[in-house]
Amino acid sequence: MTTAARPSPRERLLETAAALSYQQGVGVGIETLCRTAGVSKRSMYQLFDSKDELLAASLERGAAAYTASLLPAADDARGHRERILHVFEQLEAQAGAPEFRGCPYLAVEMELKDPDHPASRVAREVKEGLAEFFRAEAAADGALSPDLLARQLVLVFDGASARAGIGADHLAGLIMPTVHTLLDAAGMR
Amino acid sequence: MTTAARPSPRERLLETAAALSYQQGVGVGIETLCRTAGVSKRSMYQLFDSKDELLAASLERGAAAYTASLLPAADDARGHRERILHVFEQLEAQAGAPEFRGCPYLAVEMELKDPDHPASRVAREVKEGLAEFFRAEAAADGALSPDLLARQLVLVFDGASARAGIGADHLAGLIMPTVHTLLDAAGMR
Repeated sequence: MTTAARPSPRERLLETAAALSYQQGVGVGIETLCRTAGVSKRSMYQLFDSKDELLAASLERGAAAYTASLLPAADDARGHRERILHVFEQLEAQAGAPEFRGCPYLAVEMELKDPDHPASRVAREVKEGLAEFFRAEAAADGALSPDLLARQLVLVFDGASARAGIGADHLAGLIMPTVHTLLDAAGMR
Repeated sequence: MTTAARPSPRERLLETAAALSYQQGVGVGIETLCRTAGVSKRSMYQLFDSKDELLAASLERGAAAYTASLLPAADDARGHRERILHVFEQLEAQAGAPEFRGCPYLAVEMELKDPDHPASRVAREVKEGLAEFFRAEAAADGALSPDLLARQLVLVFDGASARAGIGADHLAGLIMPTVHTLLDAAGMR
C-alpha cells in the first residue's frame, strides 16, 4: 500500500465524516468512520476530542465550498433580484442529483436536536450567512421588508431542501415560481 | 406495583417509540425503548418484528391525531382560504411549545434517508394527505393552479416546521404573511 499522494489521516477522517453523516445520518458509528477512513480509533482520538468534534470540524471544513456553490460570484454584476434567484437555481440543480439528501446543515441540526452541539453551531452559522446574504441584497434593492424577505427565503430554501432531500418533490416548476412570488410581494425589482 | 389501569405493553411501546424518536431521533436504541416502556426485549420482539416495524407502527398510530391537530373540523363552515390558513395557525401555535422539534413525519423521513423504510412510507402518506387537503381546497375555490399551490403550501409547511424545530425561527410574523402572499398569487378569495 502506498501513501505517497494519500491525504493525511485528519483529511481522510474529515472527508469520511462529512460523506457518511450526509448519506447515513449523524448516528454513523465511530468504528464505521474509522474503518472507512482507514484510520485507527486511537489515531482518531489523538486528532479529535470526540466524534462530536469530528462532525463539527467536517461541517466547518465544507462550509465555504457549500456557500460558494450557492451564492453568485463576488464580481457577478447582475441585479439584486437575479443574485437572489441564482441561489435557488443552484439549489434546484443540486436537488436533481440522485445522491441529494437535502441541505447537509439543515439535516445535521434536525438530526442532532441539540442547538448547543458543536455541529449545530457550525450549521447555524452557515444558514445565518445565507440569511444575511438575502437581507443585504433585499436592502440594497430597497425591498419593503428585507428582514421578513430574508426569513421567507431561508424558510423556502430549507423547505425545498427538505422536500427534495426526502424525495417528496423535485422542485422543478415549484421553487422558482415561489421565490418570484415572494420577491414580487416584497417589491424587489 | 399495580397494573390495573396501566396501558398494555404494546401501547406503552408505541407511546414510548413515538416520544423518544421525536425527542432524540430515530437512532434511539432498543434497550432504551424497552427500559422506558417497562417491557422486556423478548416481549417487544413478540409484539413487533423489528425496531423498524415498531417505529412505523408508532407513527401510524399518531397519524390521525396529528392530522386532526392541523386540519379544520369537517363541519367547519369557513371559506376555503380560511380553512387553509387554519393549518398554518395551528402550526404556528404548535411551534411555540418548548418541546416542539418540528413535524415528526418530516423529521423521520430526513433522519432515515430511506424512502423504502416502513416508517418513511407512513410519513409520506401523512404529508400526501396534507397536500391533498390543500389541493382540494384550492380547486374548490377556483384557484389558478391547485397543484402548484398545494406543493408550495407543503413546502412552506415543512420549511416552517424545520426552521422552528431547530430553533432557527419562531414563525411569528413569518408564516402567515408568507401563506397569504402565496394564496393571493394563486387568486384564492
